[in-house]
Amino acid sequence: MNKNTALIIIDVQEAFEDEKWGVRNNPQAEENISRILTLWRENGWKVIHIQHTSDNPDSLFHPGNKGFSIKESVQPKDGEEVITKKVNSSFIGTDLEGTLKRNDISTVVITGLTTPHCVSTTTRMSGNLGFDTYLVSDATAAFGLPNHDNIYHDAETIHHVSLATLHGEFATIVSTGQLLDKIR
Amino acid sequence: MNKNTALIIIDVQEAFEDEKWGVRNNPQAEENISRILTLWRENGWKVIHIQHTSDNPDSLFHPGNKGFSIKESVQPKDGEEVITKKVNSSFIGTDLEGTLKRNDISTVVITGLTTPHCVSTTTRMSGNLGFDTYLVSDATAAFGLPNHDNIYHDAETIHHVSLATLHGEFATIVSTGQLLDKIR
Repeated sequence: MNKNTALIIIDVQEAFEDEKWGVRNNPQAEENISRILTLWRENGWKVIHIQHTSDNPDSLFHPGNKGFSIKESVQPKDGEEVITKKVNSSFIGTDLEGTLKRNDISTVVITGLTTPHCVSTTTRMSGNLGFDTYLVSDATAAFGLPNHDNIYHDAETIHHVSLATLHGEFATIVSTGQLLDKIR
Repeated sequence: MNKNTALIIIDVQEAFEDEKWGVRNNPQAEENISRILTLWRENGWKVIHIQHTSDNPDSLFHPGNKGFSIKESVQPKDGEEVITKKVNSSFIGTDLEGTLKRNDISTVVITGLTTPHCVSTTTRMSGNLGFDTYLVSDATAAFGLPNHDNIYHDAETIHHVSLATLHGEFATIVSTGQLLDKIR
């Protein structure tokens, strides 16, 4: 990895503190993202923050609500790109693909929330669009989810199966430790 | 559902008969897709076949190999659209989105192989692009997969967790029976 590798941080927003989401796994995700972000900043490599936004005033992600804010530990600094999106994929309705290409980015490292939804969807499109894609297993997290028959799948299962379905097909899955070792 | 609803059949190709994929669930998928396809044909509604292709002569999906063929039970008829793709998403590198829009399709019913890869990725993009998206739970199937630590997740778990992560967020999950009841 080198200066052509972008760090993408997806939806690390206060909205996910709301109790409506239920039980979450991997509480260390934000701390791990923060460690990775520090290294990217030290190296002067490209950082792209993705921020979910909603036009619905009742949504946790409406810019008028506290939930829209990016969490303190990964707050963007001046000069870092912030791209807002309205759907799960960071590539749909945004200029993320163009931004990456204009910056000669061929490799992306994906982190953020949540594993099965915005992170998985963005990782799938990143791989399919031809970017060499890394997803950091412990720099993302999931919430438990009921299926269409109201059978509940717990957060750990959702998280690990989501990673297994991405591995090898769309992305290389690495831990924060493995990623930092690759770079230092 | 009405004439503005397209049936999308993804990658029901001989390649998936190869033993390299390991253990599969839901052997009824093809039969269920065939039942749905019959109803679409009776109604004269739009059918779109997606066929995976590879430039690599060693790939099961290379047009020179038997695996490229669409299985007999869901073979396209004259006049039905066949779109080839080279990545998991049926929307990337193809004109699927344009085809749907030109045909005034606002709703899509997705079936095919495999649940966690091409079906999930296409369903995610379909929902995110704004199509009212239905995914038929027993008209798709999964293979077991090892994760990045070589821990094996069985086909049933992969299948059901993939559906749970799509449900409500990207698509409405229905069974073949529920879908046919909705239409008849």
